Amino acid sequence: MSQPARRARPTGRRPGNPDTREAVLAAARTAFAEKGFDGASIRVIATAAGVDPALVHHYFGSKDKLFLAAIEAPADPADLLPELLAGGTADLGANVVRLLLRVWDGPARAAGLALVRSAVSNEWAARLLREFLVSQVLRRVVGTLGLSPAEAQARGSLVASQLIGVVMGRYVLQVEPLASASADELAAAVGPTVQRYLTGDVDLRGMVPGTP
Amino acid sequence: MSQPARRARPTGRRPGNPDTREAVLAAARTAFAEKGFDGASIRVIATAAGVDPALVHHYFGSKDKLFLAAIEAPADPADLLPELLAGGTADLGANVVRLLLRVWDGPARAAGLALVRSAVSNEWAARLLREFLVSQVLRRVVGTLGLSPAEAQARGSLVASQLIGVVMGRYVLQVEPLASASADELAAAVGPTVQRYLTGDVDLRGMVPGTP
Repeated sequence: MSQPARRARPTGRRPGNPDTREAVLAAARTAFAEKGFDGASIRVIATAAGVDPALVHHYFGSKDKLFLAAIEAPADPADLLPELLAGGTADLGANVVRLLLRVWDGPARAAGLALVRSAVSNEWAARLLREFLVSQVLRRVVGTLGLSPAEAQARGSLVASQLIGVVMGRYVLQVEPLASASADELAAAVGPTVQRYLTGDVDLRGMVPGTP
Repeated sequence: MSQPARRARPTGRRPGNPDTREAVLAAARTAFAEKGFDGASIRVIATAAGVDPALVHHYFGSKDKLFLAAIEAPADPADLLPELLAGGTADLGANVVRLLLRVWDGPARAAGLALVRSAVSNEWAARLLREFLVSQVLRRVVGTLGLSPAEAQARGSLVASQLIGVVMGRYVLQVEPLASASADELAAAVGPTVQRYLTGDVDLRGMVPGTP
């Protein structure tokens, strides 16, 4: 089928009819924002877009990949996290900070800032960015630590608070010397905070039901 | 001079001709964004607005108050911080978190979110929010600790990273259980981070010139 060149598109393999693809992505954004990553299914998204679920699988490969395409994620954590997690848990906090800065100090920053900008101005985009953080980043990092689901979620949300704050302070507000520090310097200063939230002694009463 | 009622205005004492007042505030926003809080002077702002500096003093009282009016700050830290600082340094981290949440869980939240929204979408607004954090909040809190200016700035920027992240995670992205935790629960979990950044052992090499 011939496809009219209606507008410039990013490079890279983008299979399928662009109208169908866009319909699937729009249905995906709605479903992920309304039901969360876990609650949305490819079947429901396909039905909403009026296509066969097999076509969605064929276009996007997996629910993770569909989600990343739907939110125009600047990077795929599944590509980046295995190396991080292979480093073990002792330096995980500092390594998380280093990886965050490697992504944000690189070409992904513009797309990352666009996501943050949308999230702050639009509740729907905020839900999608939250689902990205929780399902694609935090769950994978904290999921290696053998914690109960409730404790993993609580520790993950604390890690998120520090990492989002580094992004906002360094790239949006540009507070010095946070903005000019090197990745190693910030990993040294902020890494212990992330490490404590991941594996250290944190008073989680109230944040984790049943904590004494 | 009679003043036409062109639009609804917030209640409270707002002396002077609204056109003059607005001209001063516009000149103040430009000067504070371009030169920073320290670099901008009432004299230069008054000249840019075409009024006498004495009138700016008469309208706004002080450079701090002019700045807060210019950025439409949701709260005046000068009113809130003395009680915090009177509590001493041992619990300062937890008390900072508690005060942050008291402000953001109250009626100031809408104006606070508006400031964050502007800062993320507009570099000029980002500079003003940064100047607010640095000159009105961090300097006053960290300034009580007897640190060198460079160390105070470095520790302040780390405190900012955690506090901004709590605001973003709790109120914008609404990551659970960060979003639903009580102020005391968050003070217990996050307070030690802020305390470490303020008074604890932090590797500040590179962030503070001359640190061994």
